[in-house]
Formats: sequence, structure tokens, C-alpha cells
Amino acid sequence: MKDQTTIVLFSGELDKAIAAFIIANGAAAYDHEVTIFFTFWGLNTLRKDDAVKTKKGLLEKAFGWMMPRGAKKLGLSKMNFGGLGPQMIKHVMKKHNALSLPQLIELAQEQGVKLVACTMTMDLLGLQQEELIDGLEYAGVAAYLGDASNGKVNLFI
Amino acid sequence: MKDQTTIVLFSGELDKAIAAFIIANGAAAYDHEVTIFFTFWGLNTLRKDDAVKTKKGLLEKAFGWMMPRGAKKLGLSKMNFGGLGPQMIKHVMKKHNALSLPQLIELAQEQGVKLVACTMTMDLLGLQQEELIDGLEYAGVAAYLGDASNGKVNLFI
Amino acid sequence: MKDQTTIVLFSGELDKAIAAFIIANGAAAYDHEVTIFFTFWGLNTLRKDDAVKTKKGLLEKAFGWMMPRGAKKLGLSKMNFGGLGPQMIKHVMKKHNALSLPQLIELAQEQGVKLVACTMTMDLLGLQQEELIDGLEYAGVAAYLGDASNGKVNLFI
Repeated sequence: MKDQTTIVLFSGELDKAIAAFIIANGAAAYDHEVTIFFTFWGLNTLRKDDAVKTKKGLLEKAFGWMMPRGAKKLGLSKMNFGGLGPQMIKHVMKKHNALSLPQLIELAQEQGVKLVACTMTMDLLGLQQEELIDGLEYAGVAAYLGDASNGKVNLFI
Repeated sequence: MKDQTTIVLFSGELDKAIAAFIIANGAAAYDHEVTIFFTFWGLNTLRKDDAVKTKKGLLEKAFGWMMPRGAKKLGLSKMNFGGLGPQMIKHVMKKHNALSLPQLIELAQEQGVKLVACTMTMDLLGLQQEELIDGLEYAGVAAYLGDASNGKVNLFI
Repeated sequence: MKDQTTIVLFSGELDKAIAAFIIANGAAAYDHEVTIFFTFWGLNTLRKDDAVKTKKGLLEKAFGWMMPRGAKKLGLSKMNFGGLGPQMIKHVMKKHNALSLPQLIELAQEQGVKLVACTMTMDLLGLQQEELIDGLEYAGVAAYLGDASNGKVNLFI
């Protein structure tokens, strides 16, 4: 049986999302079964770049406006400097030929990393499936625990 | 032997505390032995709502005043907006019939989740046992490591 | 075979670094093999106190100036109050005879805790080996995963 690695991506910041995907892609390259469970602000990583027309209440719309729309819009957990920090990080990553976050996500999907959106958080924040990128699974904490119980490397980021 | 799950709750924010208790309650429902070890700002989750009269030094009093008093007073790690964010989250949780943090804590205690307050941090911040909710255990990092060494799902939140 | 414990120290804050080293030293005292993998802002914990003359580009110099130089300069994740918070924490730690972060690092090295600096982040942020304290190992995410796969207590801080 393959080794299992799971990551809960709770945080909605560029630097933490990059760390999560680098570890996930590394583990997948080592032939681990890998699950990333996106919950709370981490779900913003999975939003489509463009606004999607949906029917939702005012509060849910407000959450949608206030939260960053997708992997390209995330800020940094430190030294964000009103958006300058993420530009600097993206610049040095490009300079060193490191994969960008959207590329890391694509690679993860190619390697079969299971990307799971937390349905409870989606309900709370009013996020709908058509607002998120393709190729996701949708589940709750029980599914996460099922995977994590088989794993040894279980991280909360 | 039962599966063991441990969570270090280091952060003192509402969203992270909710995540910790949802995972803990889920694991307990799956018949895991579950320990949450509250350290640093995470201890604020366990403070009683009302001020408790204690004898302590000025610096310890200052920590007591500056830190949020209990689960109902915690802020968010993101979009706190001076306390508006937590109200919004509490509102949508109620609307979706999700358990509030105080209810999640109560459920955890009913399910036998072991809630351990880190005695070293209590000493440092000048928090005393009578300032914290009932039904806790008191221990140090050694006790945490004892539980974590038997677990596979060990998270730091 | 010894139990393995690994910690990814991603955060560059005093309180989180202290938590990481207290857990690491505790695990080492229990005869675990312990690895701390320093990545992103966590690398700042390992910087030497004094500026080291190096040749680097302007952007890398800018990162070097903006990030805290070493364990004594880190801020808090909460209640930093422009540097007053860390002084308060250091004061109460001294008062309770708790080890300071530099002492915790020294103890970890004496106990054989493996301190690994993430080479990918070093490249990105332009940090060079002579800017970091002695006695480190240098490796990438593959080495981290190798250790973590043998461990049960694997934390991301």
C-alpha cells in the first residue's frame, strides 16, 4: 500500500499555498497518495480568476467580494506591503525558474494529487462549485480524517 | 488499541479554534482518542467569560487584560475588521445551523476529547487554573509528546 | 529504530520559533530523531546577528534588509506592539528561568537535533550559507519528506 500524505490548507496566503503545493508535489513524486483538503481561507486558492455569475444572498456576495479570487490574487502572510510583496516573490520565483502557484496546482492535478474542497466552508462562505476550478472533489471533515488516518505525514498549513 | 489524534492549538483565533474543534470532534466520532494541547495564545480559548479575581503581578495582569477572554471573544486570523468579521462568521454559522465554538467545546468534552492546558505557558502569561473553564487537564510538553508519539494525525494549528 | 519527529518551521515569529524548539528539544530528550526544516520566513531564525558581507543583487539585498536578522530580532505573531510584545515575552521567560530562543537553539544543537535550511528558499530570498549560523545542513523538500515519511509526529509551524 502506498504511503499517504495529507495537507489541510486552511490559510489563504500565497506563501503558505506555495509551501503546501511544493510539499504535495514532492510527496506525489515519491509515489505517495496525496490529499490537499482546502478549508476556510484556503478555498480562495481554488477560485476561478474571473467572476462567475451565481445567485446568492447579500452576505455571501460580500464574502465573495472581500476574499481574493484565485491563486493569482493571494497576498503574503508577511511583508505583503499592500501587494508589493507578492510581486517581489513572483519576480524572484520566475527569475529562478521556480514554478508559479498556478503551475504548481496544474502539476499537482497531473500527478494525481487529490484536491478536496471542504463543503461545510463552501456552505458558510456561500462559495459554489462553478466558482471553483475544475477537477476538484467535494467532501467534509470525515473524508479528510479517513485519508489522514492512513497517513503519517499530516500537516495543517 | 484506538487511533490517537492530537492537535496543538497555538493560535488564539476564532477561525483556527473552530477548525481545531471540528477536526477533534470528527476524530472522536470515529472513535479516536483525541487530545487538544492548548499553548500560547490558544489558551485564551479556554478562559472563562467573566473576570476571575486573582492575585498576580502587574505584567501578568497586563497580559490578562490584553488577551481575549474566552471563546466568545476571539478574533479572526483574516478579515477581522475590528470585530465585524467574527460577527459575520458567527451569523452565517448560526444561519447554517453549525455549532458555535462554545458548543463545539462542550461537545468535545462530552465526547471525551482530552483538553490539556500547557502549564509552562500558564506560568509565563500568569494564567491561573480558576481563570480557565472546568474539566481541563494540566500538563507540559512531555505529556503532549507522549500522546503524539502514539498518534498518526498530529496537527499544529 | 528510533522514533522520528519532524517540524517544518515556515513562520518567522518568535513565539512560533520558541514553540518549535520546545517541542523539538522535548522530543530529542525522549530519544527521538528530530529534524527541523527551516523554510520561507522560518529561515530568519537562523541568520547571524551581525550583517555578513556578501555579493548579491539589489532585490536580494532588499529582502536581507527587510527580514529580521536572527533569533533575537523576531517579532510576535500576536500582540507585537511594534516590538514591545517580544520584550515582554523575553522578560517573563527570563523571570521564570525559561530558556531564551538562542539558548533553545544551542540546546537543540547539543542534543543532535538536525537543523536543515531549505536551499530553494535560500536561492529565492538570496540568503547565503555564510549569513546563517554554523552547524546547519542544507537540503530541499525531498530530504524533508524522507525524514517525515519515517516519523509520526510531523508538524508544520
